[in-house]
Amino acid sequence: MVAGAAAGPAVKTAAARPSIEPLRLLVSDDMDAVNREILRRMASDVSLIPELASHLIAAGGKRIRPLLTLGAAKLCGYRGDKHVLLATCVEFIHTATLLHDDVVDESERRRGNTTANVLWGNQASVLVGDFLFSRAFQLMVETGSLEVLRILANASAVIAEGEVLQLMTANDMDSTEADYLKVIESKTAALFAAACRVGAVIANRPDDEVQGLDDYGRYLGIAFQLVDDALDYAADGATLGKNTGDDFKEGKVTLPVVLAFNRGSETERSFWRRVIEQPEEQQPEDWQQAQRHLARHGAIEETLGRARLYGQKARQALMAFPAGTARDALAEAIDFAIERAL
Amino acid sequence: MVAGAAAGPAVKTAAARPSIEPLRLLVSDDMDAVNREILRRMASDVSLIPELASHLIAAGGKRIRPLLTLGAAKLCGYRGDKHVLLATCVEFIHTATLLHDDVVDESERRRGNTTANVLWGNQASVLVGDFLFSRAFQLMVETGSLEVLRILANASAVIAEGEVLQLMTANDMDSTEADYLKVIESKTAALFAAACRVGAVIANRPDDEVQGLDDYGRYLGIAFQLVDDALDYAADGATLGKNTGDDFKEGKVTLPVVLAFNRGSETERSFWRRVIEQPEEQQPEDWQQAQRHLARHGAIEETLGRARLYGQKARQALMAFPAGTARDALAEAIDFAIERAL
Repeated sequence: MVAGAAAGPAVKTAAARPSIEPLRLLVSDDMDAVNREILRRMASDVSLIPELASHLIAAGGKRIRPLLTLGAAKLCGYRGDKHVLLATCVEFIHTATLLHDDVVDESERRRGNTTANVLWGNQASVLVGDFLFSRAFQLMVETGSLEVLRILANASAVIAEGEVLQLMTANDMDSTEADYLKVIESKTAALFAAACRVGAVIANRPDDEVQGLDDYGRYLGIAFQLVDDALDYAADGATLGKNTGDDFKEGKVTLPVVLAFNRGSETERSFWRRVIEQPEEQQPEDWQQAQRHLARHGAIEETLGRARLYGQKARQALMAFPAGTARDALAEAIDFAIERAL
Repeated sequence: MVAGAAAGPAVKTAAARPSIEPLRLLVSDDMDAVNREILRRMASDVSLIPELASHLIAAGGKRIRPLLTLGAAKLCGYRGDKHVLLATCVEFIHTATLLHDDVVDESERRRGNTTANVLWGNQASVLVGDFLFSRAFQLMVETGSLEVLRILANASAVIAEGEVLQLMTANDMDSTEADYLKVIESKTAALFAAACRVGAVIANRPDDEVQGLDDYGRYLGIAFQLVDDALDYAADGATLGKNTGDDFKEGKVTLPVVLAFNRGSETERSFWRRVIEQPEEQQPEDWQQAQRHLARHGAIEETLGRARLYGQKARQALMAFPAGTARDALAEAIDFAIERAL
């Protein structure tokens, strides 16, 4: 058993670090079906649509949202095939928002690739986003569940509200921690919550389980975004496959900035006002200065600490479900979301 | 009866020119309810959303799509209240596409006003469009009809496909009349068809009536867009409340251009290739030159002739329904759509 013996330590090393792999393994057949469905459903006679969509979708990404839908359905003992449609639909909604986000943020890199807006222009990105969004609703209709449609239509409206609020609070150092929390609850956590909730809904589970999975997804989504926003101030851009420092360059008011601003001296506050409110005037040395201010007030550590607190809430929400590989895999996804920052 | 006698000739004068007014009168109470619903449903805690949305919605426009939904429901003898939700939803889908269109086309004027993208930026227009689109789906869910959701999700996907196809065929004089027809069937006629179809669906009418109203809407939509595209080459910009010459400036390949190109001399074809394929290089005199070429080949008249043919098809589709004020009002809407060009 040389192979097994050789694999031993590797497996142990892998297990020592929280991973999304147990969740991926738990639903691997379903996820293969989702990947096929994604390719099939982005098809269109209008060739630019699959061309542009597949550029972003083929680049990968963790597919964490469809994994959550499949994992939630598994946890609920769902035996049908609608979870595959729903996971596809959730990924399409997410992809549509990414296409629109990159236009809004004028981003040039996403998942380690040049963004669609750079390659095909803003116009095509806006319209293909609209197409994927419509396609998502067509998929929902196929599930035949009005409750699913209600959940995901509500989530979509909340996501758009969150994105607009983010736009309004950007470049404004008077925006508060409460504003920030509302932005991330809306733009990120609402879809995580809906992705999990629909898994329980199609399995016809009772209200407390539906709410339990909603809570799990929501808290996980908040933790996930807190970590993302902490990582945006990390020294090394490789972690996320996107440009570290994007939030800073765009003058987004994320939690690390709010904390450093609130705890900063008058001089520091003036610094933050200048770089966040007129990001186009930033100087090369401002990035290092920002990191020094963040470090002085433990703003990144505190942001990650909040993420851990929301992670605990997510874990608590899971505990209402029976122990087993599904619950373990979903629980480890929380740790993965948080520990990827370390 | 002095007042009555005085009103007589005025009514006759009004009747002499086809109008949308009979349709508006037919459903005026319902339309008041729709206008209230529109205001109510664009509300959001995120203040920029109602601010931006109401700029476009308050500017008016003919509201022809919600009028069609209400008129179709009336023609089908519908007695419930879901038609008001549906008409609101149809107008929201239309408004969302206008916001995105204006970003895509970099338009500066719409309905006689400065566009939202100019006033609030592309970012806000994209995101508020997404919000209105999501809101439209929330309204559909409230009707409780999966069939309605199916129809409008399909229409939304087809609209996005049409917009992308329009983007692909723009600035390309090799695009054909068939391409053009597919673009307008998708980007315009699909929503007209859906707006009418749902009126029959909520009234639980048999398939042939559902299809009849779908046909009516589709042909009317094609006629409507043909006239729009003819008017874009009209001498006077006041007619549409938008800038005459926009299509020319953007290098869109609409039917007047296709016809003039196909019938033109080699010199004329070179002219069209130059102005359509590199619109940014257009010279001030090109606009007059284009109009001379269009006139020489009767391209505008022919475009309006096609609109009349589709208008006849729309009328034919209506004839399956019993005679009465509803049918008359919907028939007159066809003439209105066409005659506004004269």
